Amino acid sequence: MENRRSFIKKSAMAAAAVCLSEIGSNAAPTALEGFGKANRNSHSNLIVPKGDALPITGTFLDEISHDIPHQNWGEAEWDRDFRYMKEMGIDTVIDIRCGYKKFMTYPSPYLLKQGGYMPSVDLIDLFCRLSQKYGMTYYHGLYDCGSRNSVDQVEPNKYIIEEVWERYGSKYDSFGGWYISHELGRYLDGAIGAFQTMGKQCKDISKSAKHPKGLPTFISPWIDGKKAVSAAKAEVHRDEGVSVDDHRTKWNTIFDGIHEYVDACAFQDGHIDYDELDAFFTVNKQLCDKYGIQCWTNAESFDRDMPIKFFPIKFDKLRLKLEAAKRCSYDKAITFEFSHFMSPQSAYLQAGHLYDRYKEYFG
Amino acid sequence: MENRRSFIKKSAMAAAAVCLSEIGSNAAPTALEGFGKANRNSHSNLIVPKGDALPITGTFLDEISHDIPHQNWGEAEWDRDFRYMKEMGIDTVIDIRCGYKKFMTYPSPYLLKQGGYMPSVDLIDLFCRLSQKYGMTYYHGLYDCGSRNSVDQVEPNKYIIEEVWERYGSKYDSFGGWYISHELGRYLDGAIGAFQTMGKQCKDISKSAKHPKGLPTFISPWIDGKKAVSAAKAEVHRDEGVSVDDHRTKWNTIFDGIHEYVDACAFQDGHIDYDELDAFFTVNKQLCDKYGIQCWTNAESFDRDMPIKFFPIKFDKLRLKLEAAKRCSYDKAITFEFSHFMSPQSAYLQAGHLYDRYKEYFG
Amino acid sequence: MENRRSFIKKSAMAAAAVCLSEIGSNAAPTALEGFGKANRNSHSNLIVPKGDALPITGTFLDEISHDIPHQNWGEAEWDRDFRYMKEMGIDTVIDIRCGYKKFMTYPSPYLLKQGGYMPSVDLIDLFCRLSQKYGMTYYHGLYDCGSRNSVDQVEPNKYIIEEVWERYGSKYDSFGGWYISHELGRYLDGAIGAFQTMGKQCKDISKSAKHPKGLPTFISPWIDGKKAVSAAKAEVHRDEGVSVDDHRTKWNTIFDGIHEYVDACAFQDGHIDYDELDAFFTVNKQLCDKYGIQCWTNAESFDRDMPIKFFPIKFDKLRLKLEAAKRCSYDKAITFEFSHFMSPQSAYLQAGHLYDRYKEYFG
Repeated sequence: MENRRSFIKKSAMAAAAVCLSEIGSNAAPTALEGFGKANRNSHSNLIVPKGDALPITGTFLDEISHDIPHQNWGEAEWDRDFRYMKEMGIDTVIDIRCGYKKFMTYPSPYLLKQGGYMPSVDLIDLFCRLSQKYGMTYYHGLYDCGSRNSVDQVEPNKYIIEEVWERYGSKYDSFGGWYISHELGRYLDGAIGAFQTMGKQCKDISKSAKHPKGLPTFISPWIDGKKAVSAAKAEVHRDEGVSVDDHRTKWNTIFDGIHEYVDACAFQDGHIDYDELDAFFTVNKQLCDKYGIQCWTNAESFDRDMPIKFFPIKFDKLRLKLEAAKRCSYDKAITFEFSHFMSPQSAYLQAGHLYDRYKEYFG
Repeated sequence: MENRRSFIKKSAMAAAAVCLSEIGSNAAPTALEGFGKANRNSHSNLIVPKGDALPITGTFLDEISHDIPHQNWGEAEWDRDFRYMKEMGIDTVIDIRCGYKKFMTYPSPYLLKQGGYMPSVDLIDLFCRLSQKYGMTYYHGLYDCGSRNSVDQVEPNKYIIEEVWERYGSKYDSFGGWYISHELGRYLDGAIGAFQTMGKQCKDISKSAKHPKGLPTFISPWIDGKKAVSAAKAEVHRDEGVSVDDHRTKWNTIFDGIHEYVDACAFQDGHIDYDELDAFFTVNKQLCDKYGIQCWTNAESFDRDMPIKFFPIKFDKLRLKLEAAKRCSYDKAITFEFSHFMSPQSAYLQAGHLYDRYKEYFG
Repeated sequence: MENRRSFIKKSAMAAAAVCLSEIGSNAAPTALEGFGKANRNSHSNLIVPKGDALPITGTFLDEISHDIPHQNWGEAEWDRDFRYMKEMGIDTVIDIRCGYKKFMTYPSPYLLKQGGYMPSVDLIDLFCRLSQKYGMTYYHGLYDCGSRNSVDQVEPNKYIIEEVWERYGSKYDSFGGWYISHELGRYLDGAIGAFQTMGKQCKDISKSAKHPKGLPTFISPWIDGKKAVSAAKAEVHRDEGVSVDDHRTKWNTIFDGIHEYVDACAFQDGHIDYDELDAFFTVNKQLCDKYGIQCWTNAESFDRDMPIKFFPIKFDKLRLKLEAAKRCSYDKAITFEFSHFMSPQSAYLQAGHLYDRYKEYFG
């Protein structure tokens, strides 16, 4: 009895039950029927072309988070969330970092030896299983030791990459790629070499008949724009962001260095203003094309403009960013991230409404 | 099917369905009946006189917001919210600003030409229609270009006021007034002239047989008190607020300048401490009476004393402010704002409880 | 009708209704049955030993809060929350402070005379009644005038302690102890004397045949660690925390001074890092043993590491802290606090999931 009861008593859950009952074989509760009908006839009246934007087909999974509070989901909630993702068109999930400082997503022998904290659940196994179940591709995010200097990330990840490949990569068909999770931002000394080393190791270890060059890798850096301020600061923007030209010069150098080991780049889209999207996106696409890197966008589904850090974004802001990604012929859109900011079962109820608006727009 | 499903899956929604089914013709779900009954007998035991305060009869609609995260409601949710407002006694809704920088609530030809962002829905049309449907008066908030200098607001609003009157004001009976949305605070150079110009334009354009002087206008300034700190700062108060005497002197000058074009003034009640309410409210009422301006209070329903910016206020704090407004013979109470901070379907579940406490108190 | 309706329309409420209907005599809604069943079979797969930690048997009640937004619960919601607490194994509730500056939990004649704000409900009476109903022990938190200097707290509490004993302590069997609510932190001048005076008064007034030494008292100080930063600051940690040795020296002095009047000490566990728990807990336990004070832990159920201040903690973090408390043979665990951060009806839906994870772990 207990599990049903504990399930039912969460509000988003009660909701989810009804929603998913329609996917499965359960009957919808008749008591809500009448109201539902009235509602069915009151679609919002959109005055923009529907679906004229790049749809989101991937999402990060925010484990281990460092700035978004945890939702404390168990396996049942994660399973349900993958169903919601699938229903929205998501085919790719990316664990954002498999460990952060002493916290980890799976019982890593290497990290445990370093004094890491034993997790109560093996989330990587769970994510690989659920990806398998829902026909999605799982990308694995590397460990983050907490240093802003990428060079420090190389050593621990030597062990992590091996462990992860042996435990999950070689075992689950859903394991389909790597995410080099360190954010290339202002601290660049030695970063190119570090990304080469980590990218090469990821690819080498995952070579197979099916993937002779190894599994694909990607990065998701931030643009050093006006809104590039720490989450631990109260402010939401700073006076000066990087110029488009400086951005181009910097990333030309970086791509030149790493393109052999990085297959896609998903710039975060939230650090620049909405009227700067086309200028930066155009440069990103040109650079990606020049170096044979896939050009993805990391469409942030949280709002960087608000004093509450962070809550779901207003739909129209997300739409503006996805429209720009389409205009600039981007290859794929992923989001940070579905479960807090777009999921109907998110603790932030605005997220479920964003899901509705998104589906209303993409039809 | 989709719309009913997407509706039902939100928790506040499931709740709303049940609630509203009692207003409409739907049957209430019997499963919850028993518990509901138990609940009916456990009213809180109030130890203060019930309803001895000025009731809230108006609310802002926070579009375009600049510091409260968006709820991503569609037309169905807005319709339901107007019903909740009505049920609580609200007869006046005020759009807080029809545009903010490049964001807008309706497809403004003027702002689109300036590079503004096309909205996906025409909210002004929606708000006018819903006001009509629920028998409420709609006040229209002017455009805010983002400048703290009111003088900069005059030029764009020349076009906005014309557009809005033509599109909505002349068309909807519910369109009943104007809100000059710029906050008269510390930056006063030229502000009086700016308010005169904008107020006059609003009144002139809306003159009719029924409203020979044009539709009413109002403002909602802040008192420069201890809690007048930026939402983008972590702090919740500063060392020194304005004195009652300085407040009187300053607003005597302002009212002297603008009273011909402003029919009501709703001071925000959240920047001063609870034991300062009577002192400031008394002065406000005296000044309003002197200049023939209606004295409203903008009873903020969010809590300025908390590090989370912003969540619903504790009921007793709201009560203290509304009691003071009654003691000082204020004419009307409006709130900023119902949909986030008092609505049973708010993403902040504390809001629904505030709604219950409010109704329990006012009976 | 109104009360049932207002109850039902809150999401957490709808959920609660179903949950509690199973405790009471109501039938569970059949529409959710099927989904519930599916869920029952998907327990999380724990990879740590279950229940190898000190269970939480007490919680603060956050009235008057100074930094957590109010939930606006009425008597029905409080009653339901006590049932949830009971179900989780809680036998002790502690009102955190019966008044804070001009706000109060009960109509205190003393504070009203000083210009305090009349509350709309007598919460102390409510808490005592509910403790009685659910077989719990109620501890009463003293008044906090807002000064960081404990010496200033003595005078007002002379009157408060008398009032409270007469109104509630002498009347309710559930009234079982006192909580000296002032936080002994960095401001120690005279603090020992102040705690002696207040502790002695609490004990003296509550002497009886059954409690010849008076009712027990406790304190819940913070460790001056890395995360000891103000909630009103954006940052989440500072560069230097107190060393274990300095902590030992300081608290040896304090305990030496106050042990006669303080029966238990529940250090807050959230200001130090997870890998510092054992070092500090060991010292705490040694000092408590030396002075004959019960060693409790105040297991904070909110997350101090996030920019949102404050949301429910990740279960694994709470587990790490409770495991350490067990390893160090602590006597009891209480939490700050159940109703916002662990309750299935909390406005923070993460809290209900934390409740589920907690119960899953403790079995």
